[in-house]
Amino acid sequence: MATLRIPDVVPSPVEDCERLKNAFQGLGTDEKAIIRILGRRNAGQRKKIRETYQQLYNKSLIDCLISELSGDFRKAVILWTYDPAERDARLANEALKSRKKSIIQLQVIVEIACASSPHHLVAVRQAYCSLFHSSLEEDIIANVSPPVQKILVSLVSSYRYDKAVVDDDIANEEAAILHKAIEAKKLDDDEVVRVLSTRNKFQLIQTFLCYKNNYGKSIDQEIVACGKGILESVLKVVVWCIDSPEKHFAEVIKTAVVGLGTDEDSLTRAIVCRAEIDLMSVRAEYFNTYKSSMDNAIIDDTSGDYKNFLMTLLGANI
Amino acid sequence: MATLRIPDVVPSPVEDCERLKNAFQGLGTDEKAIIRILGRRNAGQRKKIRETYQQLYNKSLIDCLISELSGDFRKAVILWTYDPAERDARLANEALKSRKKSIIQLQVIVEIACASSPHHLVAVRQAYCSLFHSSLEEDIIANVSPPVQKILVSLVSSYRYDKAVVDDDIANEEAAILHKAIEAKKLDDDEVVRVLSTRNKFQLIQTFLCYKNNYGKSIDQEIVACGKGILESVLKVVVWCIDSPEKHFAEVIKTAVVGLGTDEDSLTRAIVCRAEIDLMSVRAEYFNTYKSSMDNAIIDDTSGDYKNFLMTLLGANI
Repeated sequence: MATLRIPDVVPSPVEDCERLKNAFQGLGTDEKAIIRILGRRNAGQRKKIRETYQQLYNKSLIDCLISELSGDFRKAVILWTYDPAERDARLANEALKSRKKSIIQLQVIVEIACASSPHHLVAVRQAYCSLFHSSLEEDIIANVSPPVQKILVSLVSSYRYDKAVVDDDIANEEAAILHKAIEAKKLDDDEVVRVLSTRNKFQLIQTFLCYKNNYGKSIDQEIVACGKGILESVLKVVVWCIDSPEKHFAEVIKTAVVGLGTDEDSLTRAIVCRAEIDLMSVRAEYFNTYKSSMDNAIIDDTSGDYKNFLMTLLGANI
Repeated sequence: MATLRIPDVVPSPVEDCERLKNAFQGLGTDEKAIIRILGRRNAGQRKKIRETYQQLYNKSLIDCLISELSGDFRKAVILWTYDPAERDARLANEALKSRKKSIIQLQVIVEIACASSPHHLVAVRQAYCSLFHSSLEEDIIANVSPPVQKILVSLVSSYRYDKAVVDDDIANEEAAILHKAIEAKKLDDDEVVRVLSTRNKFQLIQTFLCYKNNYGKSIDQEIVACGKGILESVLKVVVWCIDSPEKHFAEVIKTAVVGLGTDEDSLTRAIVCRAEIDLMSVRAEYFNTYKSSMDNAIIDDTSGDYKNFLMTLLGANI
């Protein structure tokens, strides 16, 4: 369930644009107004606002936000204002072009490939081609080394059947295939890649269940036990994003806020990308796993407009 | 260039539907009217006719055609009347479910993956999921053996960048990768699959050109020289469908009409699928390669309404 709260009576796109325009004018920027408007509109409403703003003022709303805002607040508002497919294409590109390629970056690709609908994934691939003059797959190949490269290319190329059709025989059979590969520590085996990148989500959840029932341990534990390399980390995220995305995103948020510093990019991504999807379940999962409040952890680690914006996406009345 | 001819003044969908309805009524069916109407409308117009027919008579136009027509004529008219993405999803499914899996069947998948636009390929995958309750990739895996399986799954999963962005260094580099694999007769090498399934069409055409310039022989000849197996045949079709689809479809038509019998399924598919795309170029390529007229070959090998329908799609005034 989503955390995003939309007012009972939503102003027209023209009204929203006029208020945004006002918020940009004068000496200071009225950040609170921006949060109040954009932070309480769904993707369809934000699209209409972007289009209306362009028509009314012959200017891109995104460009105005870029010039008016700054820091983590700016990044969060802009990601939220983009069309979700364009947002994810940009996040993927940023991850691939970053000098570091640890799990922090590579998990962004896995989230798009495994924790989105097949339809959204295709839209991201289309947006990627339009924005960056090469395909997402080509950029993965150019920027990620094998064997992770092969896995990511196959995952982003998937177009899974999206209804709950499950075959128990296949689940048992493919649990055995996965178990054999994990036992042999051949995590990049063609068959593993095939199973994870072609089967529908419901079928894979059943396969993971069979794995646990037939071999005594959960597949993510067994993958992690294979080693501490990037391949193991990526495959663990694949399993979580398919099996229970809320578990994955709870962990992303926890990792972002834990310790002294904060990883604002990961925190922003998790909140912005899931506020309209399952952030309520992420919150519940966070509480169950870490025995503490996710919202409080975010409040403690952020401040100012950035904090207010994230809290608004989390449903708070700022 | 297309061969399909649309009249200067196109009747409204309602008029077309009324005439189709009349053609179905009475003792016999008026096949000529059906050919005259459907055989002279483009995909968008046929879509409107399908929708209008359903609204006017609360019946599916496709179902009426199934019950009114017969034989190869029926098959051709129905394939032509489907939405192109649904048509190709059905063709792919028929090919995968057929008992024989020679190049005659498997090339259908290659055509969809390599001789269509990225957008159309995605639409076919979506239609496939809707119609057959599994993904195209899953059905390839269930019905085609390795190593061809791996190649087909990667090709249908592609979403190539669709503009003419070409990098000469990459072309030379990847021509060398392909040459090394062909020399070693490792046609299903991961790198071969990667290059063929992720690079844009224009880049691949340049890579094939580099191959010829750098190694003296064209890549399709070298692939064929590797052996007479299904893997070599499939890869040759991949190269042709990317490099010059008109060459491939000219060969499909020639093979369909050559000798005593006719392969009506392949002939129908080539004409129906390319009439709106490049059938004019296929005709020219046929003439250049076989020094004879494609249209005459088809006239000699077909008869009756089936012949008239194919000729109409080829632009003739029947």
